[in-house]
Amino acid sequence: MHNLKPMFFAASSVFAITALMSNSAKADEGMWTFDQFPSQKVAKAYGFAPDAKWLNHIQNSAVRLSTGCSASFVSKDGLILTNWHCSEGCVNDISDAKNDYAKNGFVALKREDEKTCPGMQAEVLEKIIDVTNDIKEATKGKTGGDFAAAQNAARTKAEEDACKGLDKDKYHCDVISLYRGGQYKVYRYRTYNDVRLVFEPEYAVGFFGGDPDNFNFPRYNLDSSFLRAYENGKPVSGVEHLTWTTEVPKENDLVFVAGNPGSTQRLRTVSQLKFNRDWLLPTRQLVRSELRGRLTQYMHEGTEQARQAGGPLFSLENSYKAQYGQMRALMDPQFFAIKANEEADLRKKVNANPKLKKEIGDPWSVIDKATEKQRDLFMPFDFLEARAGSISSLYGVAKSIVRAAEEREKPASDRLPGYSDAGIKNLERQLLAPSPVYKDQEIIGLETWASKTREYLTVDSPYVKTILGKESPEDMARRLINGTKLDDLKVREALLKGGKAAVLASDDPLIKFMLKIDPQARQIRSQYVNQVDAPMSQAAEKVAAARFKAYGADVYPDATFTLRLSYGKVTGWTYNGTNIPAFTKMGGAYERATGSFPFELAKSWVAAESKINKDLPFDISTTNDIIGGNSGSPLIDKQGRVVGAVFDGNIHSLGGDYAYDGRLNRAVSVSTASIQEALTKIYNAENIVSELNGK
Amino acid sequence: MHNLKPMFFAASSVFAITALMSNSAKADEGMWTFDQFPSQKVAKAYGFAPDAKWLNHIQNSAVRLSTGCSASFVSKDGLILTNWHCSEGCVNDISDAKNDYAKNGFVALKREDEKTCPGMQAEVLEKIIDVTNDIKEATKGKTGGDFAAAQNAARTKAEEDACKGLDKDKYHCDVISLYRGGQYKVYRYRTYNDVRLVFEPEYAVGFFGGDPDNFNFPRYNLDSSFLRAYENGKPVSGVEHLTWTTEVPKENDLVFVAGNPGSTQRLRTVSQLKFNRDWLLPTRQLVRSELRGRLTQYMHEGTEQARQAGGPLFSLENSYKAQYGQMRALMDPQFFAIKANEEADLRKKVNANPKLKKEIGDPWSVIDKATEKQRDLFMPFDFLEARAGSISSLYGVAKSIVRAAEEREKPASDRLPGYSDAGIKNLERQLLAPSPVYKDQEIIGLETWASKTREYLTVDSPYVKTILGKESPEDMARRLINGTKLDDLKVREALLKGGKAAVLASDDPLIKFMLKIDPQARQIRSQYVNQVDAPMSQAAEKVAAARFKAYGADVYPDATFTLRLSYGKVTGWTYNGTNIPAFTKMGGAYERATGSFPFELAKSWVAAESKINKDLPFDISTTNDIIGGNSGSPLIDKQGRVVGAVFDGNIHSLGGDYAYDGRLNRAVSVSTASIQEALTKIYNAENIVSELNGK
Repeated sequence: MHNLKPMFFAASSVFAITALMSNSAKADEGMWTFDQFPSQKVAKAYGFAPDAKWLNHIQNSAVRLSTGCSASFVSKDGLILTNWHCSEGCVNDISDAKNDYAKNGFVALKREDEKTCPGMQAEVLEKIIDVTNDIKEATKGKTGGDFAAAQNAARTKAEEDACKGLDKDKYHCDVISLYRGGQYKVYRYRTYNDVRLVFEPEYAVGFFGGDPDNFNFPRYNLDSSFLRAYENGKPVSGVEHLTWTTEVPKENDLVFVAGNPGSTQRLRTVSQLKFNRDWLLPTRQLVRSELRGRLTQYMHEGTEQARQAGGPLFSLENSYKAQYGQMRALMDPQFFAIKANEEADLRKKVNANPKLKKEIGDPWSVIDKATEKQRDLFMPFDFLEARAGSISSLYGVAKSIVRAAEEREKPASDRLPGYSDAGIKNLERQLLAPSPVYKDQEIIGLETWASKTREYLTVDSPYVKTILGKESPEDMARRLINGTKLDDLKVREALLKGGKAAVLASDDPLIKFMLKIDPQARQIRSQYVNQVDAPMSQAAEKVAAARFKAYGADVYPDATFTLRLSYGKVTGWTYNGTNIPAFTKMGGAYERATGSFPFELAKSWVAAESKINKDLPFDISTTNDIIGGNSGSPLIDKQGRVVGAVFDGNIHSLGGDYAYDGRLNRAVSVSTASIQEALTKIYNAENIVSELNGK
Repeated sequence: MHNLKPMFFAASSVFAITALMSNSAKADEGMWTFDQFPSQKVAKAYGFAPDAKWLNHIQNSAVRLSTGCSASFVSKDGLILTNWHCSEGCVNDISDAKNDYAKNGFVALKREDEKTCPGMQAEVLEKIIDVTNDIKEATKGKTGGDFAAAQNAARTKAEEDACKGLDKDKYHCDVISLYRGGQYKVYRYRTYNDVRLVFEPEYAVGFFGGDPDNFNFPRYNLDSSFLRAYENGKPVSGVEHLTWTTEVPKENDLVFVAGNPGSTQRLRTVSQLKFNRDWLLPTRQLVRSELRGRLTQYMHEGTEQARQAGGPLFSLENSYKAQYGQMRALMDPQFFAIKANEEADLRKKVNANPKLKKEIGDPWSVIDKATEKQRDLFMPFDFLEARAGSISSLYGVAKSIVRAAEEREKPASDRLPGYSDAGIKNLERQLLAPSPVYKDQEIIGLETWASKTREYLTVDSPYVKTILGKESPEDMARRLINGTKLDDLKVREALLKGGKAAVLASDDPLIKFMLKIDPQARQIRSQYVNQVDAPMSQAAEKVAAARFKAYGADVYPDATFTLRLSYGKVTGWTYNGTNIPAFTKMGGAYERATGSFPFELAKSWVAAESKINKDLPFDISTTNDIIGGNSGSPLIDKQGRVVGAVFDGNIHSLGGDYAYDGRLNRAVSVSTASIQEALTKIYNAENIVSELNGK
């Protein structure tokens, strides 16, 4: 789950993108890795070249959260700055019908009041190790399932090697495929498994304007929160961190964003983009829309229903809007033509060079063929494996338990991704974290999943027959969810400890159901991996190689939810003759408020109106190239100080999954100045303000 | 609302249509008008040429229903055969919490028990008058808004002329644009305003398999019902009607379908199809999906909620599936290429002939430009005018009352379409028919509409500001629906009678709301008509003229929910190596039943299992070219006898909106043999069986 709050989208023409993009990154474009950051390019444009020391300091202060967000350390005692919406899962987890922190906000005025966020982890990228040769060597000459298996084994080995001898509770290692197979690198992380909530504003402030204003700018949103990393029951101490400042950057000032953009598709081939446009996005959006309707209606049933379903609806609407923007971008013929031209240019360069041609071959045709296969396998793969169970968390719990029991009996190299020893350990940590389970919602999720699976795969599909037997989706969902004991952490623990024997002996209906359907899910997964993923990955390595040869190092990899650095400047934009300024002011929130959801301001803000400096810059627009997953990233000035927290992109940036248009795409941050103003004048959180200012 | 039950759709490849279609109709293709039926073509293919007498008899026996369905007279006493789902609105209207006819079915064993279907009308096409020259003359040399106004005035005049001197309660006249402006004809109808329900089977029989089996075949569905036309409180007598037979047509037998296909887009240009693919269909489907989720969840709240929302959900899912099929067809590159080739061929023919070129010009570019405008205007037009109010019927009532008051003060030629004297009279009849109003559902409809309007037009749209002011969609919907008295027919009547003065003086919140927003809705409507519809219609006349010149008379007009005759044969089809037979048998329903919704058979069928002839042909697949609106059409043998009632198309026919593929597209009918078997053995309706057999 990559979190980034989306923007408001208007009708048609907003998505008509006319800028011509080329294969080499234009000014301000790029989500660069820290080990290949184009400092000279930045110097050329802005007169400042980040050096190794500067880069190291940022890297060591940047934090990735297990909620799919980015963040940064902002005090030596492990205080973490991120977004309101990145802590929203945590406040939902620690809220109940009596204490609704999601609605009312949360402030710990003393450290003892800081509350554990169940299952949340924070981590810092500590080291990058290039393993490209090892991985490529291991897969040499192999294809299809053999390729996938060999790569999986080589990745597992590289991860184990890189983390050898380290405390598994404090470190973990991931192989990252960069440039879609152009490079393979191990990213080693320092992990913090105890993260606590320090400050979260009210929903009506953190998400003022709600879904209608999401991805909109001008914006008036205190989308920020503070967490703290703990170890051994105490705040960590002496961590490297960014310096806090309330100095507001000026128009055209150079600013950086250090964070973890989740996923982009900029290096995908045209046939892959067509697949997304014609199959993946419309299907998922239609299913999402229906679930959105169900949750909305459910929330109308009562206050407690509204509280319980608030979090899931927020996530759903956020994804919906972001992907609607992606659909619109791909459906725009001008936008699509740009991507087609890019590809044609690269292929022309390859074909014009016989030696290169011989080396590269025709990976595009391989991908074309794989996308044909993908059309046949996508629906069963998506419904049975990738998105099985919809929003039912218990479905996920059962699946993880059943798979962990099966996988841990195999040698490491043969296991499914995510089920290495380290992976299972992490899984157990997540499964045993005390998050609330709401059975009504679980039933909605499971029923929707079964019903849509039946709709898209057909009643006569053998998969559907296995799932439903003679039951209706409604009856099946009720029976499984009302009957399961997997909401009890002790039951989970017993099954995890008991391994395969315990799982096979279980009479829990959800475990029994999972044992019944998992063989088919594994089968479709393996078909998809062997017939779609493997040939695509292999061909993508060739496309990446062609791109390096044709354009040199002046390219950046697609986003992979790993640490990147983007540079840009503070500025608004001009669209259809309208100038949108770079800053909003705190007073603007009072002007936009109507008193009706989602445009009613929190009572605390209404009460403090006379105390607030209404002219203080609130939200900031910058040209940084970001995407979902960057939420919570620090906005950094050239002195390396944090001046804001990125929380959104503007509406034009929604096409950023596929291409960056520097004239229109903007990142939106909340200023540190407004955060401090609110902490001081509204929340009386002098303890946090003092800590931020190193006192 | 054009009703035709859709088919089951499977994943991807089902929609890959590879047949090459040309501009002239292939065997069995075509929805032909009765005055230009290609009898010689039929004779060539099947050795039987329908003559004028044969055609007249069918035309006089064919019935159109105001529920968006087709039907036929099947006895001299006005007994009407149609589909279960065409009477489903009626049974919902006459049901309440105590008497749930929708669920349990309805059989009138004596005429006194037949129940009025509120607001339902039946009509027979009595005369066709060509007015092409008059209409074209009136618009000569005009463009944009002038063109639209002149055409509107000429249409109104032609309708008034054609119905002059006739009893307005028994006749009405419509100008129909055929071939998208190639011809204009007045269709004069004999109208029956009192239609009563005679027989409707249980939901679990009329729609056995529900949405999952919709558009599926093999199918096991008694999708049939009987109505009766009354006049002066008595059944009509001596009407021309089809002869009933339980003889089942054989494989490859010639069969006809006489009915009212609702709408096809086969003569649309490529840019119009792209607009549908990229804008119209995805937007509407996404909105529909969300509403589907809301209604589904609402139905889970209780038995009475489920009963009340059953009808709307059925309609919604039916449209959703049909339009999903249309999306898939247009997204298929091969399918789209066929349409592009067709257009290229026609343009080539025009360009090769200087005289023709001079006459035709380049209407395609005109349409291209109009679709660009359409992209800007579509969203506001759809949300504020075409689909305003979503499923709230009271919104529609208020809008009609406010507009009728305004329009009736204008001369006939200046009024909005539908608001001629005859139109208003008909509107009043509909508004004063006692259909139940369910306020919970009304609120869901209105809230969804306001909320999606805000989402797609943006918070800052002046339209949205007018609609919402400072209210949330939830609050607005509750205030308007809970406050309005428009569910009281006396209140409606007073406002209709009181005209503009009464409307302006009303303090009904929904009327006041409508008065506030209608000026903006009219404005966007007029922009859309002048800048999109008018240039498109005018250019389409040219494209139609080009097509006549290039391909002669061997073309049929796009469907317009007017009477058409299609010919074809009884046959199944072969897909991916699988042969699907032409017939299912009654026993198949028992085999497919699981006992769980929607695959549980009605109790009456379970009880009668031993009596039923399980080998009797149940549902029948034929090659007839049909589409939504054809539901309830009689399936006719060459002796002119009714052998079935069309109720669905197979999954492949969903692309039929854009093109017909004779190898795969099939119409699905329920056999008269199975209807009679059920009436006799299950429902003990000997009275109906006797009447059908002329006893």
